[in-house]
Amino acid sequence: MARQERAIRTRRTILEAAAAVFDERGYTSATIGEILERAGVTKGALYFHFGSKEELALGIFEEQLAVSLPPQPSKLQELVDSGLVLALRLRTEPLVRASVGLALDQGALGLDRTPAFGMWIDQTERLLNEAKAGGELLPHVDPAETAELLVASFSGVQLLSQLRCQREDLERRVVILFHHLLPGIAVPAVLARLDIAENRAAGLVAQGRMEPIAEAG
Amino acid sequence: MARQERAIRTRRTILEAAAAVFDERGYTSATIGEILERAGVTKGALYFHFGSKEELALGIFEEQLAVSLPPQPSKLQELVDSGLVLALRLRTEPLVRASVGLALDQGALGLDRTPAFGMWIDQTERLLNEAKAGGELLPHVDPAETAELLVASFSGVQLLSQLRCQREDLERRVVILFHHLLPGIAVPAVLARLDIAENRAAGLVAQGRMEPIAEAG
Repeated sequence: MARQERAIRTRRTILEAAAAVFDERGYTSATIGEILERAGVTKGALYFHFGSKEELALGIFEEQLAVSLPPQPSKLQELVDSGLVLALRLRTEPLVRASVGLALDQGALGLDRTPAFGMWIDQTERLLNEAKAGGELLPHVDPAETAELLVASFSGVQLLSQLRCQREDLERRVVILFHHLLPGIAVPAVLARLDIAENRAAGLVAQGRMEPIAEAG
Repeated sequence: MARQERAIRTRRTILEAAAAVFDERGYTSATIGEILERAGVTKGALYFHFGSKEELALGIFEEQLAVSLPPQPSKLQELVDSGLVLALRLRTEPLVRASVGLALDQGALGLDRTPAFGMWIDQTERLLNEAKAGGELLPHVDPAETAELLVASFSGVQLLSQLRCQREDLERRVVILFHHLLPGIAVPAVLARLDIAENRAAGLVAQGRMEPIAEAG
């Protein structure tokens, strides 16, 4: 058990080092050597967890989604929560920031960036399908279409927030995004009860209700 | 007059060459020398129009907006039209593609990318203000907020379309964006009359109703 915990910690250390190096040098220029040096681990330890630079990037992508939020009576509320918490984590966690940076880096040679979006879209579509099954969505809504749009819009919103003010206003912008998109997809009675407050994510985190999913060792 | 026309043509040639070079080599690595060679113009001609690499980028940004569409009774229809036409131009005009590529290039050292978004947001906000004055918007809508959201969302949508299929489905995605956003901002009677068809832009262009704004010589 202690051994598994150590492995999880080492994996996290490596991912954080890789995120920092990718962030500073860009994916294309970054080398495994620099990541090893930053992480302070052996080559063997790194290759035990990640077989290549691309696998490191994939590990960083997965980290973005490795959070479980408390279940809510409304699945749309869970969707809102995941967006607000992602906004907060983008502002405060370098690893999550690196994940989005990689996904949006058009100059990342040899990196397939579609898995980053794919995983994120799948998660969103799953929530929307549950919302649909629960009668929370207007009849015309196609969960697959809406999931792609939501993820795309969120990406653009965080990009503009980064350009304008280093993401300082990201939560506010995500609230505005939900205020614009939800009336087009939610049944009015559900819409009226959603909590889309800017400080909701901070509240969830402060109450210690955000628990990381156990990572593979 | 002929002289001015020649100047306009030269300016366009230089911008197209710069767009191609930025696209292939990235903004940071591209040199004025390469752009000169590609354009086949003299150094003097280039510096007559553009004082620096950054001014070339700014010229490319401006090109994205240098289109005048036919006026419509509804300002929201004009907003929809500009989005659909931009989607079409992104698919078909390398210069417009380069403009968005530059605006989203996080690795573009020394390039202030905010003007690209700023110009685009201003244009959108102007249309929304006119729509509001004409009673087309729901009372709670803040044109400045909605303009930033629309431009950010459009940016994300085109990015995902590029990743998925080289923007082949961009018009369809922009239609989906409008279908999701407009119910949150438009008065129902206006919403019901909007033409948000995927092939509307192609129709506008085919009918020759898209005339470029005269450029400064």
